[in-house]
Amino acid sequence: MNFSKYVKSKKLYSLAVCKHKANELKAQGRDIISLYIGDPKEDTFEGSPKAVISYLENNSRVNYPLSRGQGNLLSAVADWAKRTYEIDLDPKTQIISCNGTKEAVFHLPLVFDWSDGSEIFFGSIAYPVYKASAEAFGINYRELPLKAENNFLPDLDSLSPSDWDKCRMFWLNSPHNPTSAIASRQYIEKLLALAEKHDFLICSDECYLEIAYGEKVTSLLEFHNSKNWIVLRSLSKRSRMTGYRSGAVISLNKELIAAFAFIRAPAGLGSPVFVQEAAIAAWSDDEHPNVFRDDYKQKRDIIKAALEAKGFYVFGGEATFYLWFSHEKLPSSKAIFEKFLEKDLVITPGDAFGDDGKGYARLVYCVGEELCKQTASRIMELEI
Amino acid sequence: MNFSKYVKSKKLYSLAVCKHKANELKAQGRDIISLYIGDPKEDTFEGSPKAVISYLENNSRVNYPLSRGQGNLLSAVADWAKRTYEIDLDPKTQIISCNGTKEAVFHLPLVFDWSDGSEIFFGSIAYPVYKASAEAFGINYRELPLKAENNFLPDLDSLSPSDWDKCRMFWLNSPHNPTSAIASRQYIEKLLALAEKHDFLICSDECYLEIAYGEKVTSLLEFHNSKNWIVLRSLSKRSRMTGYRSGAVISLNKELIAAFAFIRAPAGLGSPVFVQEAAIAAWSDDEHPNVFRDDYKQKRDIIKAALEAKGFYVFGGEATFYLWFSHEKLPSSKAIFEKFLEKDLVITPGDAFGDDGKGYARLVYCVGEELCKQTASRIMELEI
Repeated sequence: MNFSKYVKSKKLYSLAVCKHKANELKAQGRDIISLYIGDPKEDTFEGSPKAVISYLENNSRVNYPLSRGQGNLLSAVADWAKRTYEIDLDPKTQIISCNGTKEAVFHLPLVFDWSDGSEIFFGSIAYPVYKASAEAFGINYRELPLKAENNFLPDLDSLSPSDWDKCRMFWLNSPHNPTSAIASRQYIEKLLALAEKHDFLICSDECYLEIAYGEKVTSLLEFHNSKNWIVLRSLSKRSRMTGYRSGAVISLNKELIAAFAFIRAPAGLGSPVFVQEAAIAAWSDDEHPNVFRDDYKQKRDIIKAALEAKGFYVFGGEATFYLWFSHEKLPSSKAIFEKFLEKDLVITPGDAFGDDGKGYARLVYCVGEELCKQTASRIMELEI
Repeated sequence: MNFSKYVKSKKLYSLAVCKHKANELKAQGRDIISLYIGDPKEDTFEGSPKAVISYLENNSRVNYPLSRGQGNLLSAVADWAKRTYEIDLDPKTQIISCNGTKEAVFHLPLVFDWSDGSEIFFGSIAYPVYKASAEAFGINYRELPLKAENNFLPDLDSLSPSDWDKCRMFWLNSPHNPTSAIASRQYIEKLLALAEKHDFLICSDECYLEIAYGEKVTSLLEFHNSKNWIVLRSLSKRSRMTGYRSGAVISLNKELIAAFAFIRAPAGLGSPVFVQEAAIAAWSDDEHPNVFRDDYKQKRDIIKAALEAKGFYVFGGEATFYLWFSHEKLPSSKAIFEKFLEKDLVITPGDAFGDDGKGYARLVYCVGEELCKQTASRIMELEI
């Protein structure tokens, strides 16, 4: 069979490598702590399972969902956005429900025509789906170098007007997976001015935005006068609902939302109504994301202190539940990864996210408090 | 924004037109019976909500699902296939879980390279997603004429060897939506010989296969020695689980299944684990599909009798929950559609499925018994 170029490339989704290693060691009977995937091991927001159960107990059948989302879910998202960002959104034309933002990231490029060779821009250290979707659809892309000296943000000044003219979609991910880098308001204003001048779309993947310990992180939802952004928000991290697969796609550009809804209808991307009921519960409650954030801050403190005590350089750490770090005496990502394996800690080598991640590693701390403390103890025992 | 050619085409998904009409009439206070969408209005298989509730009551968190499906679901599908078709399937390499077969239909072409201009073949009267996915991905396709004189099946003899050489995927949908046409074993054997000779893939959309009132309909799963088919089975109709979004993709071609699994991982197409639990319950119970089938047979009898009493020519009707019919005195699909509207019955004009559906209409009878009886009474009152 004549498989596509992308299928033939057989690139393994980077985290699959860590998972394989973790499973291998578990099979050897070792007491592994898995710290490589951003999949909260704490309890889901309790309103969500309750909403599912209540729906199913009261409805003896469940019919096809509306592919763009039930009206009451879209209204719940609009209400949340209004409370949080004072933005007025029309639920019917400016919001779409998605089966988790992963699928929305993957499918979004399908709305555009790429035959003129225009490109998708994203950071050289990135959530792998930005690149995977470009490759799956045969779209040109550009990986913008992310360097420590630029705080792991793309250097906007390094690109010329003709570079920007090639750009059709720009993936911004602030706070950033895996580095926890945060784009300042000033940075975003500059990017938005470029987007409007060169008519590209800022695709703002904000799935970690609620998990930030310092100042409120700037969202594109604060810019009430631009049609050049689309925001993806997820319940996965905010409400610890990874397994529910639910997120929201928002833009003031109604034409864009209509185009995305159009492509999504035959793609069968509607979420079961009972999942949407869980999502309504989650978007309607403003307290639990704060509780979860405070919980992660404590966990961050415990682990960051251990890493620094052992001489690791920890970048950022002011958002997400990731720590991104390097060590003078462990010059490669692999060396850090293997050092942690000695204490049965499975983390992610930084170069799994791209070559510019070389020399770094990512540790995920969305695990229970007891495991966090054990992790810190084991880090303290590392022989470096 | 430079939207894709497909987005610019703005073709309305055919059923959306009927829905719009139904909603418009409901808003006028009319007592509409909706008979245009294959979305069972009867209760879901009772094991499914029970499985979801039980999972959520016993698990305080729900993590990322495996994108190809949990092991116990894949095993349940393999066991079902073994019981039903005596086929030995390796759950790990020959089966994938999907979020309903609609998304699998849409995404399947992504596994292939289409740069050589090869084509997707499907019937000229068809489930709209076959064409939508070809158009969304810019793939060439060929609509094979479906005519009453060929029992609404593509005429395999009408194509030359060079035609077949152009084919990379062939959508077979037996029993057929919307006509209820059934491909005989002989027909499928002939098609399979062509597929092996010209190396194309038979994509067998078998989502109505359990709803058949006569002889057992032939499944590609009965052919244990070919790597040239992929079978899509859905729980939507069989178990009245449209709203759960769950189906299975099966092939003896491990390379193909691996390719499809590969493309699905970054596309975020995993189903929530609690949905997969419902699917396990449904695949593990062989009784309810028979009960549902017998129920549909009764409903078919009631409505078919009314249609024939009023002089309609009813094609097939031996499978699916669709009736496909025409009337000498109502020469266009629109004329039939509007005649039914007079009695507040919303059906689907046959030409919504393609030009060869002209002169026909589809009536969906997956509604409660009482509504079926009311429908039959209203049909008897039609003034033709």
